[in-house]
Amino acid sequence: VRFVVVAGNTQTATIEGISAAGANPAVMAHTPSADLEIVEYGRPILAPVVPVSPTGCPTPAAVTRAAIELLDVEFAAVDAGLARRTAAPTVRVGQRPGRDIRESVPVPDARDLYDAAREFGGALPDDELVVGETIPGGTTTAMGVLDALGERSGVSSSLPENPLSLKREVVAEALTTSDTAAGEMAGTPLEAVRAVGDPVLAVVAGLVVGGAESGKTVTLAGGTQLAAAAAVVRHLGVDAPLTLATTSFVTADETAAIEALAADLDLSLTVTDPAFERGNHVAMDAYLDGEAKEGVGMGGMLAVLSRRGVPMADLRDRFLAVYDRLAPESTADR
Amino acid sequence: VRFVVVAGNTQTATIEGISAAGANPAVMAHTPSADLEIVEYGRPILAPVVPVSPTGCPTPAAVTRAAIELLDVEFAAVDAGLARRTAAPTVRVGQRPGRDIRESVPVPDARDLYDAAREFGGALPDDELVVGETIPGGTTTAMGVLDALGERSGVSSSLPENPLSLKREVVAEALTTSDTAAGEMAGTPLEAVRAVGDPVLAVVAGLVVGGAESGKTVTLAGGTQLAAAAAVVRHLGVDAPLTLATTSFVTADETAAIEALAADLDLSLTVTDPAFERGNHVAMDAYLDGEAKEGVGMGGMLAVLSRRGVPMADLRDRFLAVYDRLAPESTADR
Repeated sequence: VRFVVVAGNTQTATIEGISAAGANPAVMAHTPSADLEIVEYGRPILAPVVPVSPTGCPTPAAVTRAAIELLDVEFAAVDAGLARRTAAPTVRVGQRPGRDIRESVPVPDARDLYDAAREFGGALPDDELVVGETIPGGTTTAMGVLDALGERSGVSSSLPENPLSLKREVVAEALTTSDTAAGEMAGTPLEAVRAVGDPVLAVVAGLVVGGAESGKTVTLAGGTQLAAAAAVVRHLGVDAPLTLATTSFVTADETAAIEALAADLDLSLTVTDPAFERGNHVAMDAYLDGEAKEGVGMGGMLAVLSRRGVPMADLRDRFLAVYDRLAPESTADR
Repeated sequence: VRFVVVAGNTQTATIEGISAAGANPAVMAHTPSADLEIVEYGRPILAPVVPVSPTGCPTPAAVTRAAIELLDVEFAAVDAGLARRTAAPTVRVGQRPGRDIRESVPVPDARDLYDAAREFGGALPDDELVVGETIPGGTTTAMGVLDALGERSGVSSSLPENPLSLKREVVAEALTTSDTAAGEMAGTPLEAVRAVGDPVLAVVAGLVVGGAESGKTVTLAGGTQLAAAAAVVRHLGVDAPLTLATTSFVTADETAAIEALAADLDLSLTVTDPAFERGNHVAMDAYLDGEAKEGVGMGGMLAVLSRRGVPMADLRDRFLAVYDRLAPESTADR
């Protein structure tokens, strides 16, 4: 198994109230760079932020890192367009972050990103790819693409209260700017990514198609953003079998309607529950309260753990150990 | 242990007869990019070349990869200035290859490269770093820096017949262009790298200093090029204990005088012999004939194998398995 995390930024994330991935815009820009460092090294080493929310909710990268420490998997980070440097080694596919989707052409090079990622995904020597993402604001751009393609566009959120009406407003404005309407880009998904998406969606779609074409088993590790990437793949006419592996926190989010979306897109759905228990630790409580939910491949790594018979109790212990490395002042009984 | 390979290019490599790292200049430019893919994936996956010499001698990356497959080590590739893309994830420190050292200022950003690498080396979370290189033409630039610093400048070669007089000619011209002479840059080693070196030397020196300053055990994995980086470190006034871990093929090369150079620079020298036997395989014969000798951290990885008690017979078997992946038409008895 090779685990690939596609990282990038979109200016869409700076719209107030859109994302919880980072306490404020300045921090948020660093979040995907820090996420890659957490997965690679166990903590941020040069990124100047630790993505832990004001309530103590750590980035899902902490769960993913915990899983990786329990598993023997290869890891590759892909830079689809990061705004800030990262000290994690990356395969550089993209050159720049996406712009705010309310501007025209937020991802001008969507097709080039897709092509380069497809080539890379096809060339990887592994039998199985598990592909995740980290991009603040990514559920809004996912909604934009799902809408443009005419797919169900309920999306999840890293916030306990999903700011869905704000997202719908932003997407409506984005579609208007691009002089299109819901469903009008069905069948031309790279056009949709170019007009109302983000660079990570283009790169994930390319990796998935390149991987599937070369005979690899491909798992989309995430929630509605990965489903949006799958929608791009399906609208390109690729009908390879694909699995969407997400967390129980996403399926608990009714606004996401992930089961219906997965069914629409002919994706097998794997849902894994890490069995966090309330009252044990602030970090677990935050997830149980609906913060973060998914990201950085968390659902996919939980699925690999489960498939290999690693007890979730081990994952929970390791998660707290990673958390203490991230936020050393915290204690389990605080 | 984290194994770090610093990769880059210098136009110095295109001087006819200087380097064996690649059959011709067009191939050679891709060699460090391909080397990183071999270490990361076991074979080149997007690099359009397989670095095997006309005589069947594979890049030392094949030995290094074999060692990695037998060891549990973390790996990070650093891009100090690659001329060609690589599909291996890299930490990007440099932006461009070095120019021919016969031109003025071949590495204008030597200090920036050093500073960025020092920060990265200091930030890495590991207790021990093993640092190797891949840069065609690197022994000539190493000679340039050793000469400028007034150190012993016998250097090794990837060719069985070391083109030492050609290298001396090139270095003499380089020193003249920079209006300096042997020994005149003693004590200002980043000036020496800027004037007659290559970007890999600046980055390796930075990693070593950053690693040592932060309390890590640092091993220089290689021959005369790593010794030249150590000379930069010593001329910066850093007297931390350092080990140079190289192969028996380098110590067998009298032109390199590696023992004397290591002693001059106060480096402990570790020499590991993979015990290749003549007549078993064309790839091993080539090394016994003095081709390649070292590179891509080979000596350092052999030292780690030896320290952990992995039998060299296992390394040899694995090396041939990697070789067959690189050059599938070959057979052991050919």
